[in-house]
Amino acid sequence: MHKKVLLAGLALALGAGYALTAFSQVKPEALVKQRQSAMTLQLKYFLPLALMAQGKIPYDANVVTRNTAYLDVLTKMAWDGFPESTKGVKSGALPAVYADTAKFKQAQDQLHTAVGALVAASKGGNEGAVKAAVGDVNKACGNCHDNFRAQ
Amino acid sequence: MHKKVLLAGLALALGAGYALTAFSQVKPEALVKQRQSAMTLQLKYFLPLALMAQGKIPYDANVVTRNTAYLDVLTKMAWDGFPESTKGVKSGALPAVYADTAKFKQAQDQLHTAVGALVAASKGGNEGAVKAAVGDVNKACGNCHDNFRAQ
Repeated sequence: MHKKVLLAGLALALGAGYALTAFSQVKPEALVKQRQSAMTLQLKYFLPLALMAQGKIPYDANVVTRNTAYLDVLTKMAWDGFPESTKGVKSGALPAVYADTAKFKQAQDQLHTAVGALVAASKGGNEGAVKAAVGDVNKACGNCHDNFRAQ
Repeated sequence: MHKKVLLAGLALALGAGYALTAFSQVKPEALVKQRQSAMTLQLKYFLPLALMAQGKIPYDANVVTRNTAYLDVLTKMAWDGFPESTKGVKSGALPAVYADTAKFKQAQDQLHTAVGALVAASKGGNEGAVKAAVGDVNKACGNCHDNFRAQ
């Protein structure tokens, strides 16, 4: 009963027929919503680290450990949300996302590398190293937003 | 430069002044957006598992492993997004979220337990056990939505 009710709700939320289609047919609007959700959560967990790195809030090693672990996973979630089918959906994505996929992929890779280094720094426990790694993640975010997202 | 530009953008996205305030002062609208983003991603990664459990799409052990690992982390993200300050923000949350916090917490715990069991089943690699665990996660989702979310 719950299962049916819930799945019906899920299908409704994602567009009629979703639950019966293959994943390649997920509605473009749902893909955009999902990729934006990933970005929203990346921001939720990255912003405190950026503020710590800038000395605007106190450094908290527990928050660093938790947030970097979350970011490690969240960083993987947005990139399947930019197929050609989403080109016409209103969002902050610039045409370059679809026109220069190699450069877009490179920008994603830069972020993965930077977040990987942040995770390693967080495990190392050196505050200076963490703050430097946070700066590199910030640069990777900014680099991609500069080129692929409307300001 | 990038850092300033990005953080300015972040502050704008979350409400003016966000970057200079403590986290307890994050705007209620931003908290709702963040918790909804977590739910959107929980759905993104849970729905394929639910469809596999119901035999509507083929079972794919790699997707099971990846999605359960993602869900393990995502399941932790929404619950700090329901403070009293968000009571007046339009969303699907029913008044019971704020009126019966103990029962709401219990519903969250039920999900944590069910997702923990799903992660264990995924590691065990037994398809039947995974499908049963998916059913229990579905029940936990449905139980909470029935009581705390407008249908």
